[in-house]
Amino acid sequence: MKKREIPDIIVSRLPVYLRALRRMQAQDQQTTSSQELGEQVHISAAQIRKDLSQFGEFGKQGTGYNIAFLVNKLREILQVERAWDVALVGMGDMGHALARYQGFTDRGFRVALVFDNDPEKIGRQVGDFVVRDAREMSQAIREAGIRIAMLCVPAAVAQAVTDQLVEAGVRAILNYAPISLKVPKDVDVKVQYLDPSIGLQRMTYYLD
Amino acid sequence: MKKREIPDIIVSRLPVYLRALRRMQAQDQQTTSSQELGEQVHISAAQIRKDLSQFGEFGKQGTGYNIAFLVNKLREILQVERAWDVALVGMGDMGHALARYQGFTDRGFRVALVFDNDPEKIGRQVGDFVVRDAREMSQAIREAGIRIAMLCVPAAVAQAVTDQLVEAGVRAILNYAPISLKVPKDVDVKVQYLDPSIGLQRMTYYLD
Repeated sequence: MKKREIPDIIVSRLPVYLRALRRMQAQDQQTTSSQELGEQVHISAAQIRKDLSQFGEFGKQGTGYNIAFLVNKLREILQVERAWDVALVGMGDMGHALARYQGFTDRGFRVALVFDNDPEKIGRQVGDFVVRDAREMSQAIREAGIRIAMLCVPAAVAQAVTDQLVEAGVRAILNYAPISLKVPKDVDVKVQYLDPSIGLQRMTYYLD
Repeated sequence: MKKREIPDIIVSRLPVYLRALRRMQAQDQQTTSSQELGEQVHISAAQIRKDLSQFGEFGKQGTGYNIAFLVNKLREILQVERAWDVALVGMGDMGHALARYQGFTDRGFRVALVFDNDPEKIGRQVGDFVVRDAREMSQAIREAGIRIAMLCVPAAVAQAVTDQLVEAGVRAILNYAPISLKVPKDVDVKVQYLDPSIGLQRMTYYLD
C-alpha cells in the first residue's frame, strides 16, 4: 500500500501506540491485546485493530500481539528504527528545554545542530551543543542533509525561518511558535504544532 | 446536544480552527470560508463544515463565516472566554519555559501556582512566580479551586504527582512527562500529551 493512501489520522495514532507498547516492554510484559492497549491510550480496541490492519497482520486471534514484534514493526513503519538528526532553531526558554530534553534517546531522534540569532547566545554551550549563528543555518542544514527541524523562535519571525528551512531541504517541522505556518504547495512539508494553549483548550470543553 | 455526544476528535480540532481564525482577525479580516480555513489548517472544507454544524449554524451559504462571531462562539464552546487558573508542577527546563511562555495570554489561561520539590528551587522567582514547595501542592490547589495542571516532572514521579493532582480536584492535565498516565476510572479526568518525540514521529512516516 502506498504511503499516501493511509489517512493522516491513522498515522498520527501510531506513535501513541508505540509509546504505550514501549512502556509495557519496559515492565517486561511480552504480549498485549487491543483491549489492553486501548485502555492505556483511550482508543477503542476496534479502532486499534483497524488501524494496525492497514499495515499487515500483526496480531493473532486469541493470543493477541507480541509486543517486541509490534514495537519493531511500528518503528519500521514510522521510520524511527534509526536516529534522525534534528536541527533546533531558537534558543529561548523552549529551545533550551528541548536541547536538554532526555526523551529523544532511543525514540528515533538526535538534536544535531542548534541555532540562534542573538550574539549573546551564539557560541554558548547548551547541554551538549554549541549555539551556532542563524546566518549559517541554511548552509549547515544543507551540508548535514537534515530533514527535520524544531522551531522555537518568536511568532514574528517563525514564517521567515520556516521559508529558509524548507529552502534548505527540511521536510518536517515541529512548531512551537504560536502561529500557523505556510509551506509551499509544491513541496511535501509536514508541520506538527505543539502549542500548549491548544493542548489546554482541548480539555476545557469537558470541564464543568 | 449533550457534551458527551460530540466525538473527542471533533472537539480536538476546534482549538486549531480558533487559532487560525484569531490569526485572520489579527490581520483585520472580517469573513472567511470553510475552503480558506481548511487550507490554513490542512483539513477539508467539508470536514470543517461538518464539525462546526455539530454546534449550530455559524455560516451563511454564499457569504461564509463572520470571523468575530465564530471566534466568540468557539471560545464559548471551549469555555475559554474567561481565564482558567493553571497549576504548573516541576520547574525543570520545560516548566521554566512554560512559566515564562507568552502564548497563554488571551487564550483562556493564566499560570497561577508553580511547584517543585527541590529545596534549591523552592522560594525562587521564575517569571512572575515564586516557586512553592510541592508538599503544599494539594492544599494550595484545593484552596484555589484549580482544575487544570501542566505536568513537567520527571517520568519516574509523574504518576504519583498525577494521583495527588486528581485527589486535589484537578480534572485536566497537560502532560510533558514522557509516560502514559493512569487516571481513576470513576473520575472524569482528561489528559493531553505534548511529547515532542510523538510530534516528530508523526512526520517521519512521510519522509523519503
